[in-house]
Amino acid sequence: MRVINFNPGPAGLPLPALERARDELLDFQGSGMSIMEHSHRGKDYEAVHFEAIALLTRLLGIPDSHTVVFSTGGASMQFGMIPTNFLRPTAAAQYVLTGGWSEKALDEAKIVGQARIAATTRNNDGTYTRVPTQAEVKFDTNSAYAHTTSNNTLFGTQFHDFLDTGPVPHVCDMSSDFLWRPFDVSKFALTYAGAQKNLGPSGVVVIVAKKEFLASGRKDIPKVFRYQTHAEADSMYNTPPTLAIYLVRNVLAWMEKEGGLPAMEKRNRAKADAIYNCLDSLSDFYRAPVEKASRSTMNVVFRLPSEALDTEFVADAKKAGMVGLKGHRLTGGIRASIYNAVSERDVQTLVEFMKSFAKSKG
Amino acid sequence: MRVINFNPGPAGLPLPALERARDELLDFQGSGMSIMEHSHRGKDYEAVHFEAIALLTRLLGIPDSHTVVFSTGGASMQFGMIPTNFLRPTAAAQYVLTGGWSEKALDEAKIVGQARIAATTRNNDGTYTRVPTQAEVKFDTNSAYAHTTSNNTLFGTQFHDFLDTGPVPHVCDMSSDFLWRPFDVSKFALTYAGAQKNLGPSGVVVIVAKKEFLASGRKDIPKVFRYQTHAEADSMYNTPPTLAIYLVRNVLAWMEKEGGLPAMEKRNRAKADAIYNCLDSLSDFYRAPVEKASRSTMNVVFRLPSEALDTEFVADAKKAGMVGLKGHRLTGGIRASIYNAVSERDVQTLVEFMKSFAKSKG
Repeated sequence: MRVINFNPGPAGLPLPALERARDELLDFQGSGMSIMEHSHRGKDYEAVHFEAIALLTRLLGIPDSHTVVFSTGGASMQFGMIPTNFLRPTAAAQYVLTGGWSEKALDEAKIVGQARIAATTRNNDGTYTRVPTQAEVKFDTNSAYAHTTSNNTLFGTQFHDFLDTGPVPHVCDMSSDFLWRPFDVSKFALTYAGAQKNLGPSGVVVIVAKKEFLASGRKDIPKVFRYQTHAEADSMYNTPPTLAIYLVRNVLAWMEKEGGLPAMEKRNRAKADAIYNCLDSLSDFYRAPVEKASRSTMNVVFRLPSEALDTEFVADAKKAGMVGLKGHRLTGGIRASIYNAVSERDVQTLVEFMKSFAKSKG
Repeated sequence: MRVINFNPGPAGLPLPALERARDELLDFQGSGMSIMEHSHRGKDYEAVHFEAIALLTRLLGIPDSHTVVFSTGGASMQFGMIPTNFLRPTAAAQYVLTGGWSEKALDEAKIVGQARIAATTRNNDGTYTRVPTQAEVKFDTNSAYAHTTSNNTLFGTQFHDFLDTGPVPHVCDMSSDFLWRPFDVSKFALTYAGAQKNLGPSGVVVIVAKKEFLASGRKDIPKVFRYQTHAEADSMYNTPPTLAIYLVRNVLAWMEKEGGLPAMEKRNRAKADAIYNCLDSLSDFYRAPVEKASRSTMNVVFRLPSEALDTEFVADAKKAGMVGLKGHRLTGGIRASIYNAVSERDVQTLVEFMKSFAKSKG
């Protein structure tokens, strides 16, 4: 029996996308072999590859100015690759810090060249409980790029309005909330997302970037490091992670069938509202540390009156068929990650459990 | 019905490894979720991860001086990462060229720093039909490393005796013949292999390296670029490609059950002998361009009397249930890739087909 999966990533995937993979795992569309046994240069895999790109292009309404690139190594690899491609001796990058991931991204950039903090909402105790407002950030117009993180998985914060970086190319790590809703791709120079939240298994990173920006990247770095190399080759410069891209294709096809990103947004807002409303109505028992305007629709973090109760909550939830609720080891508490594959019904089950747990222990 | 798969990579995988994946794709060991939906920090995935490492350690007899690292981006990514980690202003790298892949590796190293050709067996027409002998290569003892390619997938050449690089750290791209037989790991500073030949799906690279060598890598490069970072973190510095590593685990478990690398070697030699013997006994019809001492046990390349017959051969073989036999677009002709998952029986079917084709068309 399948459990209800609130894992922060790798995370639960839509059952139809997995069933499709299972049903044809030994014999892809009558070809007599698994999709992972097909040559990446053969027509069977190519059809999957370009369907994944076409689905993403339709779902997001990606304009001709932008393109899709598949990469590997997770978002962490992009933390190194982005400054390697785009930093110049004459232009620094600017990082907006909203959690541990953006700190890591900044640290990598500093090794490559000049990188500065454009804004940070770090609290004295090292936590982050909100994202900055536009007024708090000033971007130096002479920058190579400005880097933001749309959602912080760990602290449960999210930008509901993206920052306006003006003439500075906006690079955004969307790993933990990519495709939770539609967004205006044309506003970004480069967005990237490790697949293992809303998109598929770990092992592939989806990049949506402005062609002109990719072409502006450095040429004095290894060819395989250049985003432009992969963009020009339709992500077939070398063997791509074919099985992972196939699974992303399955997930994207599921999203389209379910009504696309407007439907995802509607569901995700309803799911997040249900949990936050529960937290707010039971605020004597549950504490939600994130400021309301910065609350994440993907990762809802909260605490119970004691660590012992946190532990009991996780254990009892598991008995009720819900897993992945333990908060990150750095923060403790509870975290419910409610990516696209988590249904409204799953969330309703959690909310009922939260109410009954508060009632019996509060 | 499954076909006989002679693809050069991504390639056929052992059926039991795939069946195991299919049977538990929606529910891994009663956990109620797919292995790809498990957290990489959870005990279920961790057990798989460390079992993969333990299996590889047992199969190869990896000594304590060496360690296993999982990477991504294919062998091509390592072409960039190796010089980025190990080149120094004071020490060049030396590359032995035996085909297009080693040329690519050299080109990337030249962008990063100093890299020279230690030996090349390139023919005037750009092809390679043999690997160099030890006498043809002289390694400058002051080098950062010497780079070789154990098997050339495209031209079908292979080192049967590895070159002795003396005191120079030996870095070897084993992508297309890793685990075809046992080898003495202690002789190498670093070996690497994209999984999509003998090991699993594309999307993960297996590295076996000397701990001391990894620790000697540069520290002035992004943390995520450093092999040492991943070695120290047991390849869990960031989210690894969990599904790909799980499949590698399944393939390694199959190898061990089948008798390990001595059994693989015995089968692979018998398979290669069967095809080469057929080619030699029908040398009026089939031409095998590679010098005998350099013939690959993994990729057998040959030509028929005309391109038209090459095409007919591929088409007729397909009708007989055998796919992936078309030679690389740069070389033309026929290529039978006979990695570990291709059985002796599969090869016997091919040999019978070759005999009958020669008889009817010769």
